[in-house]
Amino acid sequence: MPTNTLTQIKPFSIIDSTLREGEQFVNAFFTTEQKVQLATLLDEFGVEYLELTNPMASPQSRDDCATIAGLGLKSKILTHTRCHLDDARVAVETGVDGVDVVIGTSSQLRKFSHGRTIDEIIGIAREVIPFLRDSGVEVRFSTEDSLRSSPEDLFRVYEAVDELGVDRVGVADTVGVGSPRQIYDLVSQLRARVKADIEFHGHNDSGCAIANAYCALEAGATHIDTTVLGIGERNGITSLGGLVARLAVVDPQSVRKYNLPLLRELDQTVASMVDIEVPFNNYITGFCAFTHKAGIHAKAVLNDPSTYEALRPEDFGLTRYVHIAHRLTGWNAVRSRAEQLGLTLTDAQCKDLTNRIKTLADAHALTLEQVDLLLRSEHESAVGAAERTSALA
Amino acid sequence: MPTNTLTQIKPFSIIDSTLREGEQFVNAFFTTEQKVQLATLLDEFGVEYLELTNPMASPQSRDDCATIAGLGLKSKILTHTRCHLDDARVAVETGVDGVDVVIGTSSQLRKFSHGRTIDEIIGIAREVIPFLRDSGVEVRFSTEDSLRSSPEDLFRVYEAVDELGVDRVGVADTVGVGSPRQIYDLVSQLRARVKADIEFHGHNDSGCAIANAYCALEAGATHIDTTVLGIGERNGITSLGGLVARLAVVDPQSVRKYNLPLLRELDQTVASMVDIEVPFNNYITGFCAFTHKAGIHAKAVLNDPSTYEALRPEDFGLTRYVHIAHRLTGWNAVRSRAEQLGLTLTDAQCKDLTNRIKTLADAHALTLEQVDLLLRSEHESAVGAAERTSALA
Repeated sequence: MPTNTLTQIKPFSIIDSTLREGEQFVNAFFTTEQKVQLATLLDEFGVEYLELTNPMASPQSRDDCATIAGLGLKSKILTHTRCHLDDARVAVETGVDGVDVVIGTSSQLRKFSHGRTIDEIIGIAREVIPFLRDSGVEVRFSTEDSLRSSPEDLFRVYEAVDELGVDRVGVADTVGVGSPRQIYDLVSQLRARVKADIEFHGHNDSGCAIANAYCALEAGATHIDTTVLGIGERNGITSLGGLVARLAVVDPQSVRKYNLPLLRELDQTVASMVDIEVPFNNYITGFCAFTHKAGIHAKAVLNDPSTYEALRPEDFGLTRYVHIAHRLTGWNAVRSRAEQLGLTLTDAQCKDLTNRIKTLADAHALTLEQVDLLLRSEHESAVGAAERTSALA
Repeated sequence: MPTNTLTQIKPFSIIDSTLREGEQFVNAFFTTEQKVQLATLLDEFGVEYLELTNPMASPQSRDDCATIAGLGLKSKILTHTRCHLDDARVAVETGVDGVDVVIGTSSQLRKFSHGRTIDEIIGIAREVIPFLRDSGVEVRFSTEDSLRSSPEDLFRVYEAVDELGVDRVGVADTVGVGSPRQIYDLVSQLRARVKADIEFHGHNDSGCAIANAYCALEAGATHIDTTVLGIGERNGITSLGGLVARLAVVDPQSVRKYNLPLLRELDQTVASMVDIEVPFNNYITGFCAFTHKAGIHAKAVLNDPSTYEALRPEDFGLTRYVHIAHRLTGWNAVRSRAEQLGLTLTDAQCKDLTNRIKTLADAHALTLEQVDLLLRSEHESAVGAAERTSALA
C-alpha cells in the first residue's frame, strides 16, 4: 500500500456550493424559495457548510444571502466573493458566518482576467483579510486555477495569508486539469507550510474531481467543496453523492454523520429544479447503481452481496436488483427468482429454463414478467405431472 | 511534482468493451446489426481492440463473435471468457484475435463464486494458457476483484501466468473500490515483477474509474478498458470519452491517433441503443462541457479560452457557448455579444445594460433572444439620437 493511503478517514467537513458553484451551471436559475428549500434540505442532510453566490452579483443575490443566513440552520453559511474590500463589506453585512475570497494566481488568469502581479495579490489580501477577521467572520482565502499556477507563487501567497490569520486556505482546480497524485503532492506540501485548514475545490472536466478530492483528504485537506449532482461551470465539480460514495467504500463510519437516505431526494430535487435527468450512472442514486446482470455476478451477489457491491444500498434507503431476463443470465439467478416466487423447481429444471431464457433473449428483449410466466408454467406442469403420478398410484 | 507524474503519455492501447462489459449494463440488448454498427464505428474512431461477450453466453453471442471477427476491422477482436478449457476452445473457434481470460482471486469471490484455491487457479491457468498460445491467439490473463485480493496471492498468480507466456496480465477493480494512489502502487509493483503488458479495468462505483486508469498508465500499464459512456455492470467503468478527456488535458498529442470528432456520434448512438440520455455532465460531449456562465469566467474566456478551458472544443468538432442572459453575467460578455450582433455600444451603455439584465434575471429566467432585443433597442435608440443630433447640426 502507498504511504498514507487512508483506511480510516480523518475528520473533514463538506462545503456544499450548490447555491454558488451550482448557480453557475448553465441551466440553474434558483428562486428565493428554491434556495431556501435546498439550504434546508442540505442542512437536514448534515453538510457542515453552505456556500452562497456573491451578494454583489445582483440585488436578489444579496437579499437571498441575508435570508439564508437568517434561517438559523445548523450548517454554517458562507458566501464566495472576489478578493476586494467592497465585496467583503457587503458580504459581512448579509450576516453570513464566513466569507470565501478567491483570486486567480495562474499566469493565464493574471494576464487575461484581473491583470495583477503576485505582489499586488498579496497587497490586496493584506487589506481584505484583516477587515474580515475584525468583522468576526470565518475567512477562507483561495487561489484560483491553482494547478496551473507556479508552485513558488502559490506558496508565497498561501504563507502570506496564513500569517494574516485566515481560517482556511483553498486549493482550486478551476479548469479540471489536476491529476490525483499531483493534488496529493501539492496539498502535502501545503500542509507542511501553513497552519490554516485546507479546502479543495475541483472541477470535473477530465473526470478526476472525486478522486482528486479524496487524494486531497489523504494529503491533509480538511474541507471539500461539493455540489448536488456536481452541477457547476461547464460539466461541474465533485458531486456530494460521489464524495460520499468514495468515502463510504473506504470507511463507512466516516459518512454516518450525514443523513444518507436524503441523498436521493437531494439529487432528484436539484435535477428537477435545473431541468436535467439524474445521470444513468450517478453515484448511489443512479437507476443502475445497485443492479446486477451477468450470471456470474448474480450468482455471487445472491450468495453474498459484498462480492460485487462495495456500497450497501440499504445504507441509503435503496434496494438492489438482480436482472435475470437476458442472454447473460445464469441458472443460480433463475433458481433464486423461482424461490422468490414460491415455486418448487429442481436444479435440472432451472438449468433447462436458463437455456430457454438465453435462446429467447437472443431473439428479442425479454421482460421479467415473461420470465416469471416461464417459471410458473414449468412449476405448474411439474406439479401437474406429480399429481397425475400420485393419482395413478 | 510527484515522481513519474506524466507530462507526456507513454504508448498505450484502448480495449473498448462496450460489446462485453457494456452488454452487462442493465438496459443493454444489442442486436447483431447494432453490434456490427458499434464495432464499425469504434474501429473508425480508432480503438486498438474490441472486446466481445463470451461466446458461451448464448448461441447468438457465439455467432456474433464470429461475425465481428470476420469483418476485417483494423481493431483487434477479443473475447472475454472464464478461465476454462471449454470456453477457450469455443473462443478460438470464433476466429477472434485474442482471448481475455479472467478468474476471481479475492477471498469473497473464491468463497462465494467459484470456490477454488490460489493453487487451483494457477493449475487451471496451466491448462488454459498453453492451449490458447498454441492456438495462435493473444492471451490476456486477469484476476478479478484484484483490489480486494491479497497482494501475495495476486503476485503469485501474475508471476505464474507471466512465465506461461501471456501477452497481458489484467488488474481489475471489479467492485469500484480502488483509490488512485493504491492503483498506482499496485501497478508499479506489478510492472517490476512481470514482462507482460499490463491492462487495467476499473469500475466507477466510487467515482475513480477515470482517475484510476490514468494512475495505472502513470505506473506502467499499457492497456486500458473502456466502454462508450462507461456503460457496464452497476454504474459502469471508465468511459471512452472520459479517458480521452483525461489524456488530452495532459498531452493532446497522445489522443491524436483517434478520430476525436466521432466521440459525439459514438456517445449518442450508444445512448439511443440502450435508451438512456447522455448525462448532462458527460465528458466532452455533455451539453454543458464547453459552456461558460459566470461573468468573470466569460470575460476571461473571451480574452483567451484557455483561461477556463482545459480542452479545446474544436478538437472534437464542437463549439463553446458563453451564456450571458442571467444574474451572474458580466459587462465584458455583454459587450462581446453586442459586437457579435454588429451593434455599436459604448462601455458605459454595456455596463448599464448588464445591470438591467441582472435585475430582470433576478425576477425571472431570461432568454438570449430577450437579451438581444435589449441590446438592439439600446443600439437603435443610440443611433436614433445620433441621427437626430446630426439632423439638427
